[in-house]
Amino acid sequence: MGSYTLAATLDRPYEETVQAVRKALDAQGFGVLTEIDLRATLKKKLDVDVAKQIILGACRPQLAYEAMQTDPSLATVLPCNVVVRAIDDDTTIVEAFDPDVMMGLSGRAGLDMVATDARKRLAAMLRTLTEEN
Amino acid sequence: MGSYTLAATLDRPYEETVQAVRKALDAQGFGVLTEIDLRATLKKKLDVDVAKQIILGACRPQLAYEAMQTDPSLATVLPCNVVVRAIDDDTTIVEAFDPDVMMGLSGRAGLDMVATDARKRLAAMLRTLTEEN
Repeated sequence: MGSYTLAATLDRPYEETVQAVRKALDAQGFGVLTEIDLRATLKKKLDVDVAKQIILGACRPQLAYEAMQTDPSLATVLPCNVVVRAIDDDTTIVEAFDPDVMMGLSGRAGLDMVATDARKRLAAMLRTLTEEN
Repeated sequence: MGSYTLAATLDRPYEETVQAVRKALDAQGFGVLTEIDLRATLKKKLDVDVAKQIILGACRPQLAYEAMQTDPSLATVLPCNVVVRAIDDDTTIVEAFDPDVMMGLSGRAGLDMVATDARKRLAAMLRTLTEEN
């Protein structure tokens, strides 16, 4: 997994995991603003086959608003993407862009609390999924 | 502007700029996979007023595919966000997440060409907008 992500590998089928991620994000106060079915998109555009995977654009409006007040350019890395990717029929990875890395791009002071809050919520989401597993 | 973005400031109203950005992205081979009207979203969710702005999730499928083949975790930073943000009635900023920074997060070898191609296309998009201005 990338050093710039938070991730968990689950012994769960892909479709079930996608539903569980949606529920766990909601429980942590994230709304899903965008969705990209990467497998379907790349099949359609390039006729290539990649693993089943979806990008969920997760946003906690309070955190996005605070980040943008400090550094408007941070809108270019929002929302926080959570990717669900099938490894095989029974194994699925859930991986999110690490808010510490995201806010670290900016370098502006005052983003630590936003990053810490977002990171804590994403980590809790992954912990819930792992505990359910 | 952020050191992690490519940006241009235009003497053009917001709505007109959004249309011009869509056209210029298309000309550079980027499709728009996601759209978030940040002003509308934050008004609705938090009842706060921010500048008119939209996040366009731009994707050139070939580049996304190559990046993911090298490092599947890069899906967490795709698509490439292009933000259009109003400064005042006649001034608008267009700002994109810099593909060099995006690919640099990964640190894996073999991403230079993808980053260079994506960056060249986004820079050309911004140049078109500036020349039209």
